[in-house]
Amino acid sequence: MKVLITGGAGFLGARLARTVLANGLGGESIAELVLADQFAPPPDLLADPRVRALTGTLVEQSANLCREAFDTVFHLAAAVSAECEADFDLGMRSNLDSTRALLEALRAAGNAPRLVFSSSAAVYGSDPGLPMPTVIRADTMPTPQSSYGIQKFICEQLVADYTRKSFIDGRNVRLMTVVVRPGRPNGAASGFFSGIIREPIAGQPAVCPVAPETPVALLSPARTIQGLITVAEASRQTLGGRIALNLPALTVTVAEMLDALEAVAGAETRALVRFEPDPAIARLVYGWPAFFDNSRAQALGLVPDPDFHSIVRAFLAERASETVLLS
Amino acid sequence: MKVLITGGAGFLGARLARTVLANGLGGESIAELVLADQFAPPPDLLADPRVRALTGTLVEQSANLCREAFDTVFHLAAAVSAECEADFDLGMRSNLDSTRALLEALRAAGNAPRLVFSSSAAVYGSDPGLPMPTVIRADTMPTPQSSYGIQKFICEQLVADYTRKSFIDGRNVRLMTVVVRPGRPNGAASGFFSGIIREPIAGQPAVCPVAPETPVALLSPARTIQGLITVAEASRQTLGGRIALNLPALTVTVAEMLDALEAVAGAETRALVRFEPDPAIARLVYGWPAFFDNSRAQALGLVPDPDFHSIVRAFLAERASETVLLS
Repeated sequence: MKVLITGGAGFLGARLARTVLANGLGGESIAELVLADQFAPPPDLLADPRVRALTGTLVEQSANLCREAFDTVFHLAAAVSAECEADFDLGMRSNLDSTRALLEALRAAGNAPRLVFSSSAAVYGSDPGLPMPTVIRADTMPTPQSSYGIQKFICEQLVADYTRKSFIDGRNVRLMTVVVRPGRPNGAASGFFSGIIREPIAGQPAVCPVAPETPVALLSPARTIQGLITVAEASRQTLGGRIALNLPALTVTVAEMLDALEAVAGAETRALVRFEPDPAIARLVYGWPAFFDNSRAQALGLVPDPDFHSIVRAFLAERASETVLLS
Repeated sequence: MKVLITGGAGFLGARLARTVLANGLGGESIAELVLADQFAPPPDLLADPRVRALTGTLVEQSANLCREAFDTVFHLAAAVSAECEADFDLGMRSNLDSTRALLEALRAAGNAPRLVFSSSAAVYGSDPGLPMPTVIRADTMPTPQSSYGIQKFICEQLVADYTRKSFIDGRNVRLMTVVVRPGRPNGAASGFFSGIIREPIAGQPAVCPVAPETPVALLSPARTIQGLITVAEASRQTLGGRIALNLPALTVTVAEMLDALEAVAGAETRALVRFEPDPAIARLVYGWPAFFDNSRAQALGLVPDPDFHSIVRAFLAERASETVLLS
């Protein structure tokens, strides 16, 4: 099996790459894995003889990608929410134009590859004329209130139509806020949800730009990767149509996240988090949905993390194993 | 007031042009009216000193349009449903790329003009995973089942985001099937709904490609124009948000349309219509919604035609006045 991961050098892309290299996909082993990104993938992936890195923008790469017949493509590459809000043209180019270039390349390849498109819960929002329901269901109409959400929702439409036309076999998956992301903060407005756990655990101070009672719909990295793979492996029958699948969500408040941090890592760790409101971040975050009806995801065998304590513990365990590896 | 109508040489565009030239817009008279289309507008419009014709594609024209500061823009230009289904690339170019070029030109102009985008009830459809409800409401999620519907829905998203960013003051309006269209048949899958009235009245045979019991959500040309103007003139407060407005719809079956034709124009006129199923047309038409909750449109003062008899009578009266004008 030949697989392409766009955004393959990023945190989720690299983690997905390691998982499919280890476990295969749909019962088949991976013969070739192409990681497309603007940056080089981590050294452990580059060291695998099955891995090939393509560095550059998707628009630049599409002329070459159309000459490769991938079996499965995971399209994770994107500009993130806050940067798309700050730079409209960047978002249109990085999210809309890039996705269209990729879809055209896959169509030109002619083998109707399977495509998993990582959309986002940020497609939901309260339009001034249509308040968002408290609980998001499969038939809730997205009315995105950010350029990032609009671009993701537009790409979902393109994936659905390219699939209906049999140019590809596409599946849209909406990711929840992924917590805890390791590494450095990125330009996502939701980045602090990881930062307020990751930084204190590393002994660093962290700033929370929203109020403690703010709820968030989140999913751990492990279950997010599991969701992407499950959707890639599912039959079209099981998926049930071309509408996007919302990954399952665990809803917790910031205060509950910090309670779990304290329970797992101690009061002095929690004390490293201070609250400092940021209206620009808060406007985006407060506009996102916090509660999801998870029944469609559950029908695919996907369930949310049981609680936030387990997410903090898993992050600590992964961090320890990486420290061992790097020491 | 300076107004632009794209698709300004078409049936709806020319009719809209005549109406705003005669009545003004929002209480202001029209100082300049630009009609952009791939064809020249009708002679009566060209003869008006306030009218200027721009001939070519919107993508070609956008470099010039960005240097004009329009107060109001009606964006009607589009490739129609059946041609978009037959030629995917044509639809993407004529509907998506053209709209994006227009939006960029209006953004570059810098005066945040008012824009009315003519979307379509064809954004609705039954996804295999999400059956369409019998009655469409304002919060029904569109899951377009044609490339035309997808492209219209994507353009709605762009108009909403360009509006949220204050690049324009955009309004999305979804048109119902417009009946009776005069003139020659076009490439729209819904064209026969006009043809089965227009052709028999002209003494010509007509073919109906769907079953007599097929229901359709339609609106007369006069009320469609009234809807476009009402939305252009409405305050943002009155419109209530950025989600698209479905124009009001009269639901009738083909059989009821032919009954009205017979009542107004005689049994021998009706006898000119024969049924000849066309699976390609039927697949598109059967997938469109037939019943609409008109309450949001009604709040703006827009109501459907009272019955199909009045639509046939209005068509006859307009036809007679044109015959007088041309004789």
